[in-house]
Amino acid sequence: MDTGKTATPGDADKQPRTERGRRTLRKLLDAAAAEFGERGFHETSISGITARAGTALGSFYTYFDSKEAIFQALVRDMSEAVKLAAREALAEPLPALERERQALAAFLRFAGEHKEVYRIIDEAEFVDPDSYRQHYETTGARILERLREGARQGELRGDLEEAHAWAIMGMNVFLGLRYAVWGDGAMPPDRVASLANDLLTRGIAAER
Amino acid sequence: MDTGKTATPGDADKQPRTERGRRTLRKLLDAAAAEFGERGFHETSISGITARAGTALGSFYTYFDSKEAIFQALVRDMSEAVKLAAREALAEPLPALERERQALAAFLRFAGEHKEVYRIIDEAEFVDPDSYRQHYETTGARILERLREGARQGELRGDLEEAHAWAIMGMNVFLGLRYAVWGDGAMPPDRVASLANDLLTRGIAAER
Repeated sequence: MDTGKTATPGDADKQPRTERGRRTLRKLLDAAAAEFGERGFHETSISGITARAGTALGSFYTYFDSKEAIFQALVRDMSEAVKLAAREALAEPLPALERERQALAAFLRFAGEHKEVYRIIDEAEFVDPDSYRQHYETTGARILERLREGARQGELRGDLEEAHAWAIMGMNVFLGLRYAVWGDGAMPPDRVASLANDLLTRGIAAER
Repeated sequence: MDTGKTATPGDADKQPRTERGRRTLRKLLDAAAAEFGERGFHETSISGITARAGTALGSFYTYFDSKEAIFQALVRDMSEAVKLAAREALAEPLPALERERQALAAFLRFAGEHKEVYRIIDEAEFVDPDSYRQHYETTGARILERLREGARQGELRGDLEEAHAWAIMGMNVFLGLRYAVWGDGAMPPDRVASLANDLLTRGIAAER
């Protein structure tokens, strides 16, 4: 998964100090995403990752102590990439509900291009539970911050709280699973995002 | 997980024919839920399941060929139990939105009492992907059927479709994860369900 960003996962003392080192680390993380995504954690080997990355085994140990360590770094890298995908879509100031629509559309496009992101983050529940929980807690906190900003601007209800953010996060995750990962592309991201946004805007009750 | 129901998973030719057999099968499934929930699939053993169930190893093989087979039966049993938990709450005819509120509250109570249900269904993504997908597809279809019934009764919008059902399912799953499984009980099921239902009723936009 090349997000075009320089990754900075892992221990502070194992950060690459050169541009070449950063490229190697990126190659290892991208190869790890492909290997873990295809084979799952248990069937993936460090030598499989370095073979795919085209790096020497020694390069791996320059940055990571173990398969667990690169998996953890990868979950954090993907969590960051999910955040950045939404943030890029939100570069311009937008009305609060339109912001949610754009964030979901960007997430759906990202998930469609990186289908392995679901399998890897889901497997973190078993391989690295802290990273799994952290991914959802930080994502939920980010959504809540946007909702509160919308409330301050008078565009959203003033009584929104954490449960609303988790409800929206769950909507987004399941719509991504159904239409971006399992879908056949029959429902494009913009249409899925508009349907979900319409639900957020006016609910599902019949007009009275 | 004693749901008080007689389970009927597994191959058709391995169904228990006596009440005693049904009790043994139920004990095996409940022991499997506890073992898989605590240890995960890879660390669970058949002998650990039979020891916990208090049954002979031979009883296990009367009903299941392998650890994979009981895991698959358990996922289907849990999927059925989730369905029944909602259905019992919906025994009486209710207005469409109240029906969704009660279904979510019942699911949250169920998940709070059977926290292992998340870990087991989530692990099915890796151990038994077909059962994982089937669980969500049948749950989504059930929600969609309720939404369509509500539309027929003139209580819900007439344009609701599968994506709305998946959005609601995602909300429910994530609210269960946050408040029933990870929560400290500070947000009781009825309050979580009411907040989510309020979102479905009127959306999150400020009143104009």
